[in-house]
Amino acid sequence: MSHSAPFAWSPVGGPAAAAVLGVVLTRGPISRVGIARLTGLSSAAVTKAARPLIEAGYLVELPGVEHAASGVGRPASPLAVCADREFFAGVRISGDELVGVVTDLCAQIRNTARRPLGGHGVPVVEEVAALVGELLGASEEYRARTRRLGVSVSGDAEPVPEALLAGATGLDVTLENGVRALTVAEQWFGEGVGASPFALVTLGAEVGCGLVVDGRLVTGAYGVAGEIGHLPVADGGPRCRCGGRGCLAAYASREAITAACRAVTGRDVTPEAAAALARAGDEEVRAVFARAGRAVGLALAAVVNLVGPERIVVAGDEAAACDLLEHQIRETLAARAYGGASQCPLVLRPLRPEGWARGAAVVALRGLFPDGPIDGRWNGRRSSFPFFR
Amino acid sequence: MSHSAPFAWSPVGGPAAAAVLGVVLTRGPISRVGIARLTGLSSAAVTKAARPLIEAGYLVELPGVEHAASGVGRPASPLAVCADREFFAGVRISGDELVGVVTDLCAQIRNTARRPLGGHGVPVVEEVAALVGELLGASEEYRARTRRLGVSVSGDAEPVPEALLAGATGLDVTLENGVRALTVAEQWFGEGVGASPFALVTLGAEVGCGLVVDGRLVTGAYGVAGEIGHLPVADGGPRCRCGGRGCLAAYASREAITAACRAVTGRDVTPEAAAALARAGDEEVRAVFARAGRAVGLALAAVVNLVGPERIVVAGDEAAACDLLEHQIRETLAARAYGGASQCPLVLRPLRPEGWARGAAVVALRGLFPDGPIDGRWNGRRSSFPFFR
Repeated sequence: MSHSAPFAWSPVGGPAAAAVLGVVLTRGPISRVGIARLTGLSSAAVTKAARPLIEAGYLVELPGVEHAASGVGRPASPLAVCADREFFAGVRISGDELVGVVTDLCAQIRNTARRPLGGHGVPVVEEVAALVGELLGASEEYRARTRRLGVSVSGDAEPVPEALLAGATGLDVTLENGVRALTVAEQWFGEGVGASPFALVTLGAEVGCGLVVDGRLVTGAYGVAGEIGHLPVADGGPRCRCGGRGCLAAYASREAITAACRAVTGRDVTPEAAAALARAGDEEVRAVFARAGRAVGLALAAVVNLVGPERIVVAGDEAAACDLLEHQIRETLAARAYGGASQCPLVLRPLRPEGWARGAAVVALRGLFPDGPIDGRWNGRRSSFPFFR
Repeated sequence: MSHSAPFAWSPVGGPAAAAVLGVVLTRGPISRVGIARLTGLSSAAVTKAARPLIEAGYLVELPGVEHAASGVGRPASPLAVCADREFFAGVRISGDELVGVVTDLCAQIRNTARRPLGGHGVPVVEEVAALVGELLGASEEYRARTRRLGVSVSGDAEPVPEALLAGATGLDVTLENGVRALTVAEQWFGEGVGASPFALVTLGAEVGCGLVVDGRLVTGAYGVAGEIGHLPVADGGPRCRCGGRGCLAAYASREAITAACRAVTGRDVTPEAAAALARAGDEEVRAVFARAGRAVGLALAAVVNLVGPERIVVAGDEAAACDLLEHQIRETLAARAYGGASQCPLVLRPLRPEGWARGAAVVALRGLFPDGPIDGRWNGRRSSFPFFR
């Protein structure tokens, strides 16, 4: 769902163009033959679909290179994305701050800005508009070629209607759940390219998960999916905010870890102070982090045993202290992954606030595909056409 | 994968024919207009694709009915499946027994037979061939119109090569994991029709799960998916055969329940005797079943929170004593399903050995679709074409 008046123009005129642009975005530079192989389109159809994308300046033909193997035949002229042809704004709204980015067509961050919230009685919509103005004001190019804004909202923030944001910014606005936005960004431009199934797990204030199966984000029949924070990892255990006991979030959310550290130290420590105590060797505090890491490993074992991802990315917020969890996460997952599922590579990485905003910008970029998400159908195993559902 | 020499003939000549036959199989009788709506094919394409299926005797045109609403216009002539046009053999191989069925095109069981294994030194392949001979020998129709055999093998049985089975039976043979076979049967002919995602869970000797997402069976990047028996539902807990602790199977498999009942009673009870004790009110034995039911509920909560199925079927083997588990399963799932996931209906039902064999027969039936599984893409939400990937 997105909202604007009028809808921003897209160079994607149909499924073939969408497939070609999608492949070059996520796999380019790539020859027309390579595109045909990944999409199942004929070479003629690829050439036909690419032409308007080249004319509109989204794709460019790179100089031809001789066939490496033979040195003969027609040189292949790979297609590449013109990263600067269009820019995208992405904003992450959390309870106390806005973080925004401008990205190019390759999802590279080109500008960032932050803005505190709540201090001066200004409505969030106006703060977002001011932040976007600041982001785009940095360059005439950004102002001229940014027509889409993606917004993700953290769990502790107020919901903001798309229509109001569109009115205040003059952009085509798409709201998306933050973890799902990150998952799409990773699926298109990160570790998720070509991985099916694929799972992204976030640690920190929000323990979440995005799942991609057969190239599509799993959304759940009742709007619930990827709620890894509420996977039971113990029968009993600490109370979770959802009312259950033994949920992953009750062990591994930043709030849960900090509360447990307060309980064992008897001091009102911050998340950062708790991590510092653990790094300094406080055994009781270290045990809290170890227990959290074990809980994450058990939940990841549930994901690999049930869904069988080809790869998992665990992205930890600044205060998630992934370094204190990693050993237990890996050890527990290795012990509890069933059979071949133990082959699933696990990538741990930090997640900065700009990363959330970049995910929102990729949701905006997805707006280039008016017939729906491309969702990485060209994962190298499928060649069926169309990708669009 | 299937094996035979030569491959059995199929009336399905291409994706449009596959879509039409698939819709009529799973949703028929249905008008051409209804088929067009579900498949995204034009009415002309439906008519064209249906013609050879009618000529080959797989589909039949029912007498036209007046439009109920108006009583005017061209009468709609729904298409229906000719159930007797082709039959399918399905065999379940377990450690000590073969169970076989013949089904028709509508997956109705038309004949059943059983055969004990291991008593007289005959190779399993020969026993399967003898069982199939007995099944098909019951009717000239079965002999003449059965060309496909599906085989599923339980966890405690020896693996049997497809090629040997094909050679011994003269049929086109497809081997499939039992739980996956049941899941496909349910997806095409049962509670799974139109449900996306969909989950089937088996209880009994084998605690397993089949997941369907976006109309496709989830198989996992490393061959592991749906291993609900090895979902950790406790941090610690009883030892599982996989080496872990607190796996669902360590609480809820027939073997685990029986072992726990032996421990609390101090007697060498059978699964049936344990269930009888619980039904007679033995509190300690009842507690074992209650704990198993709670573990199942926790694992189902993981499934609904992570994958968000539209419906779940739990099928219990004869000795699974689902009646002793149901209350705790439902109560725990209701308590632990997150948000909207609690709307997911849960259907509990008995699973007889013939049910496993029927699942294998549906795998054989799937062989009618040479370009791959149809996997229920026409779930009423999608209209994209083709379904085949």
